[in-house]
Amino acid sequence: MTGPLEAESVTLDLLKKKMADFAKERDWEQFHSPRNLLLALVGEVGELSEIFQWKGEVPKGLPGWKEEEKVHLGEELSDVLLYLVQLSDICGIDLGKAALRKVELNAIKYPVSKQQSQKTNNNTLFNVNNGTESG
Amino acid sequence: MTGPLEAESVTLDLLKKKMADFAKERDWEQFHSPRNLLLALVGEVGELSEIFQWKGEVPKGLPGWKEEEKVHLGEELSDVLLYLVQLSDICGIDLGKAALRKVELNAIKYPVSKQQSQKTNNNTLFNVNNGTESG
Amino acid sequence: MTGPLEAESVTLDLLKKKMADFAKERDWEQFHSPRNLLLALVGEVGELSEIFQWKGEVPKGLPGWKEEEKVHLGEELSDVLLYLVQLSDICGIDLGKAALRKVELNAIKYPVSKQQSQKTNNNTLFNVNNGTESG
Amino acid sequence: MTGPLEAESVTLDLLKKKMADFAKERDWEQFHSPRNLLLALVGEVGELSEIFQWKGEVPKGLPGWKEEEKVHLGEELSDVLLYLVQLSDICGIDLGKAALRKVELNAIKYPVSKQQSQKTNNNTLFNVNNGTESG
Repeated sequence: MTGPLEAESVTLDLLKKKMADFAKERDWEQFHSPRNLLLALVGEVGELSEIFQWKGEVPKGLPGWKEEEKVHLGEELSDVLLYLVQLSDICGIDLGKAALRKVELNAIKYPVSKQQSQKTNNNTLFNVNNGTESG
Repeated sequence: MTGPLEAESVTLDLLKKKMADFAKERDWEQFHSPRNLLLALVGEVGELSEIFQWKGEVPKGLPGWKEEEKVHLGEELSDVLLYLVQLSDICGIDLGKAALRKVELNAIKYPVSKQQSQKTNNNTLFNVNNGTESG
Repeated sequence: MTGPLEAESVTLDLLKKKMADFAKERDWEQFHSPRNLLLALVGEVGELSEIFQWKGEVPKGLPGWKEEEKVHLGEELSDVLLYLVQLSDICGIDLGKAALRKVELNAIKYPVSKQQSQKTNNNTLFNVNNGTESG
Repeated sequence: MTGPLEAESVTLDLLKKKMADFAKERDWEQFHSPRNLLLALVGEVGELSEIFQWKGEVPKGLPGWKEEEKVHLGEELSDVLLYLVQLSDICGIDLGKAALRKVELNAIKYPVSKQQSQKTNNNTLFNVNNGTESG
């Protein structure tokens, strides 16, 4: 069983090891080429999108969602994560290290002071340049 | 700076906190609705796919790829991860906990012994039922 | 130039021929394997999603969008379509025929009378079963 | 029934009208906001990807695929197309016109002569610049 203490300290390395063992035990490594895993990830992103597709705008915290819907959502989010971890592993990319580096790059690209001075006309900012935040 | 020691212990909770702080400091929380973050994630999955789109089959470990291509790949993998972490957070889903639970569910769904007995005709297995592994 | 009369009668076959000629003239046929084209399509779906990602809910007809944004949207929708047409062609699938057949299958799956009797509690319908409409 | 003659002349306008009627008859127009349809499209792209995910590289023409697999593929390609047509319609974009214009823009962006002179080192071209062909 997974206790709350364990969940707080879930590292990307732990998931990587669990998934590598999982594939090895089932002799599935032969199917885990980069593009196979990438397409599997795209498939899971599709399933994640299906959860949200007919809902119109959904508020933060998902008020009004049934517990079973939230559990289902957690499963689809996890499927995306687990394929992402496996894809990174198979490509020889240290995902945790890469993610920390990307956060640092984003902080340089979008310095706090600059953004805050744009605060007053955020709507204009986001209508004119929709790609503002994307890396 | 990010040392190798830190990278090994990157938790999903650490990334969640970093991204929440990042958004708060820039007053971006107002844009982080579930469906906005989901579409941003889809955008990043698209950029990840573009890296692989004209390459034909790519072997494990990406032999022959230039260092700059691998760095770029690490950035796109990270972008997908960071939006996934933010989407989970905004939806009130504990992604680490959910992922550990999903690994356990997968282990029940695909028991080792059953899979291993199918080892001899794996090609048939995967041609007939392409959804075998998908959760 | 493309006149309004021509646009009304754009067939999937016309686009298929145009794209096949386009690839042949540039010696690009060698890159057009099914999975290459599929990943290229995923890349374009990502670019399409980026247009909508920070906008919150968008009303029909896109009121308030600038002309240049609509032109950009038309280009991304077209990119998805053109890769879809090429993917179908390379797989030997007659997309127009398949689409007409799918519309007929959908009409059988979701008969009008049944749906109309559910009209009174549509909200319930779509909250309980989000996959209702998906084929 | 759909004869071969009809299939050859399937226009985007015909599909647009069929889908608009389909939604109207079932009172589904209320659910067809741009972002709902976009997420539905992403869901279908996921299902399309699942067909290819464990197959490794797939040759043109899908040699060795069973007839039922090809029929399934035709259905998923169609689902993507039908949501793309509906999304374009709801956004007020003439998809056929936009697609013809995009083909013309691509022809200007990638002139035949320039590409042909690069023919001799195509491998280099595609390794260095993976985005060459993407619009």
